[in-house]
Formats: sequence, structure tokens, C-alpha cells
Amino acid sequence: MTGTAPTEETLVPGLPPFALDTVDDTPEVVLDLGRVQRNVARAAATAAEHGVALRPHAKTHKLPPIAALQIEAGAVGIQVAKLGEAEVFAGAGIADIFVGYPLVGPRKIARLIELLETTSSRISVAADALEVVVPIARAAASAGFTVPVVIEVDTGLHRLGVQPGRPTVELASRLADLDGVDVAGVFTHEGHVYTEARSMEDKRAMTQAACAALADTAELVRASGIPLATVSVGSSGTFRFAVECPNITEIRPGTYVFNDLSQLLQGAATADDLAAFVVATVVGRPEATRAVIDAGSKVLTSDRLLIGDPGPTFGAVAGYPGAHATRLSEEHGLLEFPAPTDLRIGDRVAIVPNHICPVINLADSVSVIADGTVVERWEVSARGRVK
Amino acid sequence: MTGTAPTEETLVPGLPPFALDTVDDTPEVVLDLGRVQRNVARAAATAAEHGVALRPHAKTHKLPPIAALQIEAGAVGIQVAKLGEAEVFAGAGIADIFVGYPLVGPRKIARLIELLETTSSRISVAADALEVVVPIARAAASAGFTVPVVIEVDTGLHRLGVQPGRPTVELASRLADLDGVDVAGVFTHEGHVYTEARSMEDKRAMTQAACAALADTAELVRASGIPLATVSVGSSGTFRFAVECPNITEIRPGTYVFNDLSQLLQGAATADDLAAFVVATVVGRPEATRAVIDAGSKVLTSDRLLIGDPGPTFGAVAGYPGAHATRLSEEHGLLEFPAPTDLRIGDRVAIVPNHICPVINLADSVSVIADGTVVERWEVSARGRVK
Repeated sequence: MTGTAPTEETLVPGLPPFALDTVDDTPEVVLDLGRVQRNVARAAATAAEHGVALRPHAKTHKLPPIAALQIEAGAVGIQVAKLGEAEVFAGAGIADIFVGYPLVGPRKIARLIELLETTSSRISVAADALEVVVPIARAAASAGFTVPVVIEVDTGLHRLGVQPGRPTVELASRLADLDGVDVAGVFTHEGHVYTEARSMEDKRAMTQAACAALADTAELVRASGIPLATVSVGSSGTFRFAVECPNITEIRPGTYVFNDLSQLLQGAATADDLAAFVVATVVGRPEATRAVIDAGSKVLTSDRLLIGDPGPTFGAVAGYPGAHATRLSEEHGLLEFPAPTDLRIGDRVAIVPNHICPVINLADSVSVIADGTVVERWEVSARGRVK
Repeated sequence: MTGTAPTEETLVPGLPPFALDTVDDTPEVVLDLGRVQRNVARAAATAAEHGVALRPHAKTHKLPPIAALQIEAGAVGIQVAKLGEAEVFAGAGIADIFVGYPLVGPRKIARLIELLETTSSRISVAADALEVVVPIARAAASAGFTVPVVIEVDTGLHRLGVQPGRPTVELASRLADLDGVDVAGVFTHEGHVYTEARSMEDKRAMTQAACAALADTAELVRASGIPLATVSVGSSGTFRFAVECPNITEIRPGTYVFNDLSQLLQGAATADDLAAFVVATVVGRPEATRAVIDAGSKVLTSDRLLIGDPGPTFGAVAGYPGAHATRLSEEHGLLEFPAPTDLRIGDRVAIVPNHICPVINLADSVSVIADGTVVERWEVSARGRVK
């Protein structure tokens, strides 16, 4: 899909490509490996076709075997959200890891140095302020390292990031004076496009505006004599537009590997691209149009939809058009069906979560399906690494 | 507090009773042991004074050392949410465990029997339907066990539970005919009181209505010849009213052990009763009235407030009246202050979460404070036990 409006049909998650009884027990997060591989290959092809590097955000999967698939398909490396995730993926042999988060505080900096001393992987870090970088530079220089720093630029999300243009150039020039770090590039997360764009054309235009702000800023930095290499933009919902932008060198989508209800409703994926499901058991049938399942917010999270509103939902019931988890408590999910359903206590359903990333973070392990059968159970080894 | 309206003063969380730099690294969930012990003792005293048993819901803490404190203070046992939690607490030596959830599916039943075969703890289970109990009874009878079943009654939450009165009596009499189980009592979770009560008097009246429905139903069951022992009602927000009800034998509060912003705003706790905090580090200062911290939804969860609305919040900043986490992404928390603040990058803050139970579930371990200093780190050994 490149900018095509989603149709009713592509938005309704069908039954997953496996029988639910192949899963040993519930609630269980289940990955369909065939669909994962297809999603991985398609994003890699898009990046290759446009001559940009692909650096998937591994916060979605938190799984070294999936990072390995992404690298094998051509990714230049991965992004992670926290240093603890970098430690896991470096330990698993991923050779190029960008920690897209400011490392603040003596413990974090000590751990960064320890990581540099024990890995051969390239570890780059994010920063948007001089006071974040100075302690890193000092520690790195004294340990004999030069850490690549990628400057975070705020193109509209208003979370972290220095402003584009002169403020970025000024920060880059201060950083360029420091021993122990190297200004490697600029990046942005244009997450505001998800919630603010009103149409696919809107999304394209907003993504292109973010790209232009970032690329123009990169040119200004280069003009000041700092030869930065990386100009990085593009998430799962926007990278198909970002690759069209001139002077962008890298995209960093994450969710594309599994997709979820939010990606579906914003037209970034179709129902056939859904590669992760929560398999749950019906534990109560209070009414003809209602069922209670054994997956609540401790499995599905309390995350709302990023965009779109098919009524209140914490996830869609795959194969039951119009059926959603409409209320969660920690261990209970209340499903509501548009018409009476004959599901019985003990039957299983597959839920497509609103937002897959935090769902994976709640799972100690996931079941992996190949050709319709569970073939492996993978430990989610980077889950819970919030430090 | 027994029905007193909360005042402005009691609602504003002050600085926690420890220096934030006693915590090694952030984000970290921190428990103040002195406050925990005070909360534990107070609920135990309330139960003892009214002659009802206290069975704390351990889903809040998921920590065997805290269950031990509760038992030591007089609790008769604990409730857990899932069988996996029962396995952990039975392994830790808790002698009486109520699994307040329907165990559905052959794997769950096999694990229940395994647990019964390997523990000397009393394990009771919840059910609200014959088809839930029949397989349990069959497996238990054939293994030579009699499992105490407590019937869940719906007093208004409309989640699980058989209706009070005749429907409960009918279910009880069907269960009484089965070998392998014993009808031990009735219970309800009157969670609707949290969201529907408009005043403290309302809350008292709604709790008393739930108690009366449950106690009347218990009398009907007894009149049918089934001598059930347990009539159990009362959560952290309502147990102070439940203990006043005639013919109630047991209360099951959970959150009271730590409290949180929801408990505070509904007047079930004061700021001095807050025993759990999330300590976080400022990683960005985008504006004079804004700070970004290293705790997002992967630490604080996306849970909204149960009641009350001081503007959008995912947690209050302790010691900064009117300051809240107003927007979360997975690893970023955006704090908004009512006036410019001089917090700097690297400074720490303590957050009082909306809902503490799922916050504990996200933590692999917690730091334990005694007399203002971290003295221990406890593994959250029952976290993530969703099966």
C-alpha cells in the first residue's frame, strides 16, 4: 500500500493463519513467522529501492531472532529505546545499535562505557542537549572511545529534540568541539503525523515537511563544517512517504514487523500483514453478545488507539467483524459482539491489540508459528529493560 | 479515614519519605516499608475490630515478603488473580490461597492438580458457572482431592458472576452434587462502586447494597441445606463500609498496602498512606513548565484514573502540587507544572501512579526503603503470571 485509502475489507482482521488450539495455554502472544518474514522483506525492499538505509526500531519485538532476520534482509542495524535493550542486542551479536534516547546519570554512563569495553558492536546514542553529552564525552574520552552522537530534532512531536535550523547547528558545533564524541547525524521521530494527519495525502505532506526540516537542518550543519552522515526519519506509518524525500539517508520503522489495530486503521497495513495475535480463552458468557476472556490489561495493555475510532476498543476479535474488547481490567477482557455469538466457555479467540509494542513488553515469552503450527517459544529477552 | 470527605491538603502527595538519590538508577519502583507496615496493620486492625477475616488481594504487590507481613499481621490467607500467582505464593509458603478466577482449559486444570499434589497450602478457586466447575471436580475427584469452590456473585460490576438470589442457589445446589469440590462460600467484587458512587455516602450505601445482596444470597444457599462458611466482599475503596455490614465474614482489599492516585482521589487514603513511588530522572526540559522523564507507559502503564479528574494525568509529581504526567509514550513521560520549575536534566522526581497494581506488574524488581534508605531489592516473583 502506498497512499491507497484502506477499504472496509482490508480493515477487518480475519482469523489468524493458524488453528488456535496449536497454542499450549492462554493468554499467549503468538507470532506468525511467515507474515513476519514477509513484512521484514517488504520494508527492506522499499528501503533498497529508494537507496536509503533501514534501521528497524527493535522496541516493537524485543527479540534477538527477529533482529537477526531484519539484518539478514538488509537492515544496517537496529534502533533501541533504552541502554538495557542495547545490552541485550549487543550480547546477541547485533553489530550496529543506535540507542535513540538520552543517557542521563552516572549509572547509565558507567554502563555505556562497560558496554563499549565488552562489545565489538558500534553503539551510537541520541542527544538533544549539551548537558546530556558532556558527561558522556568526558567518560568516553577518558576510556579511549569516541561515541557517535545523533542529534534528535523536534519536527512537531514536541517530546524531546532540539528545534530544526540554527538551534541544531549551534548544538552540533558545541558537540563537535568535545573529545569522546563524534557528531554522526540528525534524526527525528515524526510521531505527530499519526495523530494529526486527517487523510493519507495529509500524512504524505506532513511526513515530507518533517523530512524537509530535517534535511535542510542537516545541510546547514554540513555547511558549518561538520560532515554528518546520517539523516534519519520515518516510522512504520510514514516511512513509505519518507523514502520519497530527497536527502534522507535512513528510515527507522518498528511496528511494521508485526502491525496492530492502530497501523491497520491508519492504512499502514492490511489485515493480511497482521503477524502478532493474543490468543485467549473464553472464561465467562454473561450475555448473548458478550464474552469475558482471560486476557486483560496485563496482556493487552490499557493503550488506546492512536487514531481511528470504531467505538471503544482495546483490540479487535480476529474473524468476528465488528467485535472488540471494549473494557479491560487487569485479568479480564470484556468482548462485545454486534450480534449474539455461540462462543462457549473454553473456546479460544485471537485478539489484534491496539498497540503491539507494549503487549510484547508484557510477555516473558511468545509462541512462534510456522506453517500453522507452534514450532518454538522465544524468550522476550529485551522485555522490561526500562533502564 | 472513615467516610470523611478528603480535603485539598490530604490529596496532594508530598515528597516521599526518603531522599531520591538513595535509589541506584531510574526508573525504579520504590516501596517505603514503614508506610507499608502501617497500612498493613491498620487494615488488619479494622478487620479484627469488626470480627471479619482479612484476605488481602496479592495482585497489588505480587511479593511474597509482603504477603508474609500481611499474614503476620493477622490475615487468614491471600487472594490471587491467576493460578500462576498461586504457584508462586504457595511455593513461598503462604498456607491459604484463594484463586479468584475461573480456571478454564485442560492445562489449567492439570496445573491445579499438580499444585495440590505438591503443596500443603489450602487452595480454593472461584467459579460462576457449572461448566467451569465440572472439569475441575472430575480431575480433583480422580486425584483424590476436594477443592473448595467460592461462587462469584455479580452485585453490579457486570464482569463475571452469577446473579444474586435464586440463580446462585441453583448453581450452589448443582455444585453440591459434584464429587471433588466443596461449596465453600460466595464472594463479590463490587468494583462498580469505584466508578459509579458520586459521594462518600453514596459509596457507603452502594457497598452496603452489595453486602446485603451477597449476605441474603448466602442465607438462601444455607436455607437450601448447603452450609457455606465464607461471605466475602470489600476492596480497598470499600472495605471500611463492608466491615459494618451484618453477616459478612471476609474482606479482600489489595491496593491499600501501597495506595495510589486513584485511592487518594476517592478518599480511601491520604497522602501519608502512599507507600509506593516511581523514581524517575529528568532527561529533557523542552519548556519552563515542562520536563520529560525516563518513565513512560512501560513503567507507569496507560491506566487512566478510576475516578476524579484533575485534568489529564498518568500520575502526580510528589512534592509538586498540581504537577502531573500528562502524556506518556513507552519510554517518555511528559510532566507539566502549573508554574515554571527549576528542575534540571539529571534531577530526579517521584511519581505517584494512577493505579499501582499494573505498575508493580511491569517491574522485575523493586527497591525497598527503611528509615529513608534503600535496604533491599525484592524480585517481583509473581509478576507477569497471567496464566
